[in-house]
Amino acid sequence: MTSRAGAKIFIVGAGPGDPSLMTLRAAALVAGADDLVVDALVPAAIYRQSNARVVYVGKRSGRPSISQRDIETILIELAVAGRRVVRLHGGDPSVFGRAGEEVRALEEAGIDYEIVPGVSSALAAPLALGISVTERDVADRVVILTGHRSGLENEMPELPAYDPGQTIVLLMALGNVEALVESALEQGYPADLPAVAIANATLPQQRYVASELALLPALVAEQRLETPATLVWGFAAERVLDQAVGRTAVADRQA
Amino acid sequence: MTSRAGAKIFIVGAGPGDPSLMTLRAAALVAGADDLVVDALVPAAIYRQSNARVVYVGKRSGRPSISQRDIETILIELAVAGRRVVRLHGGDPSVFGRAGEEVRALEEAGIDYEIVPGVSSALAAPLALGISVTERDVADRVVILTGHRSGLENEMPELPAYDPGQTIVLLMALGNVEALVESALEQGYPADLPAVAIANATLPQQRYVASELALLPALVAEQRLETPATLVWGFAAERVLDQAVGRTAVADRQA
Repeated sequence: MTSRAGAKIFIVGAGPGDPSLMTLRAAALVAGADDLVVDALVPAAIYRQSNARVVYVGKRSGRPSISQRDIETILIELAVAGRRVVRLHGGDPSVFGRAGEEVRALEEAGIDYEIVPGVSSALAAPLALGISVTERDVADRVVILTGHRSGLENEMPELPAYDPGQTIVLLMALGNVEALVESALEQGYPADLPAVAIANATLPQQRYVASELALLPALVAEQRLETPATLVWGFAAERVLDQAVGRTAVADRQA
Repeated sequence: MTSRAGAKIFIVGAGPGDPSLMTLRAAALVAGADDLVVDALVPAAIYRQSNARVVYVGKRSGRPSISQRDIETILIELAVAGRRVVRLHGGDPSVFGRAGEEVRALEEAGIDYEIVPGVSSALAAPLALGISVTERDVADRVVILTGHRSGLENEMPELPAYDPGQTIVLLMALGNVEALVESALEQGYPADLPAVAIANATLPQQRYVASELALLPALVAEQRLETPATLVWGFAAERVLDQAVGRTAVADRQA
């Protein structure tokens, strides 16, 4: 495996959405890039002010999405052509971003790379509502899962056993929320466990719903919550529910 | 609960250590602060160039640490005095940072606050070694725990049941590594599960050791790994072990 002189790709976490939550390093790399390779989880606000060419590799409605293999081929071709390439992932690249697969492809092709971590939506989305995923005497463990496995649209993730001291964070889970909640209830999760769904966290269009776990799917549907969204289950989310009127809360971004 | 006019505290994640991994928002707040309230998990590199007064609330060796209650009192007094106060937490404030408790204290005192997420060491420390905590067909779940519970130095965290598709990340766990590994092995974690301990992740003095789980405590002791350190257990860490000579790896930061 020889490295191709000069060719280097930056695999960069763009953070949860709000451009001010990018890292200094990510902002500098975006500013200096020739090409930004982005998908649907990176909001346009992140790269709107960049002069780089934007190579969009996200899913477009009604068309098949670009395969992971094709994304890797694009990255390699651009790097070999001498372009300064930044592969932007929403949130942190190591959290369901498939950066691991991209790294392996680059290593096989002998191309240098650097990975830059980002603020993960798994932590920032709850925090945007004031929810700390760990809290003394409330939650001493956080479990991060994806709501659907890539390539297997309808395969459900295996939920961990219920534990009252555990915060569950589910990413990319909105489409499966009904099946996920049903599965949780069957496994013994309490029907009244505090649950929140947050869409477009940290962006101006942020919206959320909060309810008891069993009511969450109906509320998500009724309020037509949009992707990308993060689900948070557990007593760490209780304060959001406490502030709600009645048993559910629906709100736009707080001022 | 009335809010005290003008008084506002910023509870800010400083990121994992490398100053370029601060968010733009965090860097701007640190630059504009009168007072930075910091503890031992925030490296000096983060605030060395700031003109703010640094109020150190960390543990000093040989002296009792400042209590959480005292930290909250300091924050409130500074804010009421009209200072622009930034409370800096290492990594992300919601991950074992006790930000939740600080928020409650500020709410009780009627003081406005804003929480700014940061890049968590739980994700950035593994990534500094090229470990993606989730990876297709390898790990579809990440569990973040603390290695000791605050106030209860010797109480062990409850480890989740073993699952080969799960990455375990333990923060502040170095002091308990022997007991933690012993407990994991008793619970059926495989003795040869890939395991890594990373100290001072993302900083120039970053060092790590990698081994099979059962060998980790001896290696940590032999190499005198220092805090703060992050432990990562699971097949997501296998690539680090594969690159090692023999069954263990010890290395300074890669160039």
